[in-house]
Amino acid sequence: MKPRQYSCGLDAAIDVIGGRWKALILWALHHGPVRTGDLRRSVSGISEKMLIQVLREMEADEIVHREVFHEVPPRVEYSLTALGVRLNEALLPLGDWGEDNMRAIARRRGVEPAPRH
Amino acid sequence: MKPRQYSCGLDAAIDVIGGRWKALILWALHHGPVRTGDLRRSVSGISEKMLIQVLREMEADEIVHREVFHEVPPRVEYSLTALGVRLNEALLPLGDWGEDNMRAIARRRGVEPAPRH
Repeated sequence: MKPRQYSCGLDAAIDVIGGRWKALILWALHHGPVRTGDLRRSVSGISEKMLIQVLREMEADEIVHREVFHEVPPRVEYSLTALGVRLNEALLPLGDWGEDNMRAIARRRGVEPAPRH
Repeated sequence: MKPRQYSCGLDAAIDVIGGRWKALILWALHHGPVRTGDLRRSVSGISEKMLIQVLREMEADEIVHREVFHEVPPRVEYSLTALGVRLNEALLPLGDWGEDNMRAIARRRGVEPAPRH
């Protein structure tokens, strides 16, 4: 079987983002390092198990950095790497497009639109 | 059960793109209308059935327009709507990020990198 091949940069980028969670996590880390528990609260709807799995994949992709502080109890913080910062910036226009078309998208899918920021 | 709610514009936008196919189709329509068969050839790896299903969803989302020309045999062409053009433009920085990091992403996943354009 022929190995899969990316057809373009966008194809590769979408493979790294893969679904809604990773983009939302990147977003949540926009303003600086966040502790695991706070991250779970700011990415609403994600389960503990899914959050941990997704963060591991993002660490392997070198878009997030995991730092363990040896306190009692130990504190774990996640932050964006330089690569993650650039990916987050590349997602901004897509977020703006979604914001501009939020009502129509939400109505069509029976989803509640996000509150305005 | 509480209805699902988008957490931000990016969440809604990712719901519209949903996976790799739609972004690749948007890309393939960048330069103008494309016939169904040509579209299938330019989005490598997609099955006929998947292409038709995905195009229907994109039509419902009003990001692509389907035009039937009553010839023998009938010719069907897809093109971007104004909304689709703006979505495509919003995806450009993401494509650039993927292009810039192509080799590392492909290596990590055992995927062939895209040939340079």
